[in-house]
Amino acid sequence: MVSDELKTLIQLLSKLPGLGPRSGKRVALHLLQNRTTTLSALEGSLGEVRIKVKDCTTCGNLDSQDPCALCQDPRRDSSIICVVESVADLWALERTASFKGHYHVLGGVLSAMDGIGPEDIRLSSLLKRCHTGGVHEIILALNATVEGQTTSHYVTERLKDMGINHISSLARGVPVGGELDYLDEGTLSAALLSRRGV
Amino acid sequence: MVSDELKTLIQLLSKLPGLGPRSGKRVALHLLQNRTTTLSALEGSLGEVRIKVKDCTTCGNLDSQDPCALCQDPRRDSSIICVVESVADLWALERTASFKGHYHVLGGVLSAMDGIGPEDIRLSSLLKRCHTGGVHEIILALNATVEGQTTSHYVTERLKDMGINHISSLARGVPVGGELDYLDEGTLSAALLSRRGV
Repeated sequence: MVSDELKTLIQLLSKLPGLGPRSGKRVALHLLQNRTTTLSALEGSLGEVRIKVKDCTTCGNLDSQDPCALCQDPRRDSSIICVVESVADLWALERTASFKGHYHVLGGVLSAMDGIGPEDIRLSSLLKRCHTGGVHEIILALNATVEGQTTSHYVTERLKDMGINHISSLARGVPVGGELDYLDEGTLSAALLSRRGV
Repeated sequence: MVSDELKTLIQLLSKLPGLGPRSGKRVALHLLQNRTTTLSALEGSLGEVRIKVKDCTTCGNLDSQDPCALCQDPRRDSSIICVVESVADLWALERTASFKGHYHVLGGVLSAMDGIGPEDIRLSSLLKRCHTGGVHEIILALNATVEGQTTSHYVTERLKDMGINHISSLARGVPVGGELDYLDEGTLSAALLSRRGV
């Protein structure tokens, strides 16, 4: 009933995060109803991004320049490196506009389950950056998941072996606007332990 | 922070139906993390679809052939035409596998609000198909919305003017698995009026 080309497109769209078979069809029809404004524009944009946007060889951020705009920015402090799991996490931190150092995107976390070891993430380049000197502080901003925390521990050990001791991780506590009743026990007890004088 | 190419891609993705700014970013990052399997594949597929998939000049269905596979199928009864608003509706009816006639996709419904008149939808080609002869029955399978029903009435008048009198519309009633308590009054009273002997 549906032509092969359209079937392939729907299949590809259905596999995108947040989309399923039904929304894949909807998007495909939307694209075909707006051929110039949407279909051709999206096709062209994908080509542009494929050709121009690359991983920054220094920090792993995605940009059309290498080193990326963040690594090149002279106003940013290159002596502090914030280690994140993904570019999405980097963007989340940049939205806060409260960090003016450099980043390092690991591109994944250690996971025995998924067979992801230290050589599968961007760890050696982080150690190399620290080895070159000039790095005084490392902030481990990994997700508060089991894999994120395992990776945090492993990275900490490796950095300490290199003589870097100024290592920190994000604070745990009650999120802004959070209600205690809805918080999990882990967060609450962490918030209690790290209580601050007022 | 984000390069222009990537910004454009995120903007285009965010405007797709069912996606927003946040899921647009997520999809863009997913595409960049799977360059060959997803980004290039999607780019290629969009190009294929753009070049090959066209509106069927007979019925308005989307296909790589013209007339489309449905119009060409000798097993289908060309004397019955089912009129639908969109290709999505055609697909929905095809999924039921209970209709073996031909289709006609209007590509929209009459709407004074949006300034869509009879010349903006595929109505003249429907009348031409009926005029050529061989069409004995028209099923109006338009949505049960105000615009859908207005369009149904208008199309009915025009078809009757041409001497086509065997015109029907989809039955209204309780959907399969539907609970009366959750049904709107309009559907319930329609189901009562069209009650059937058991």
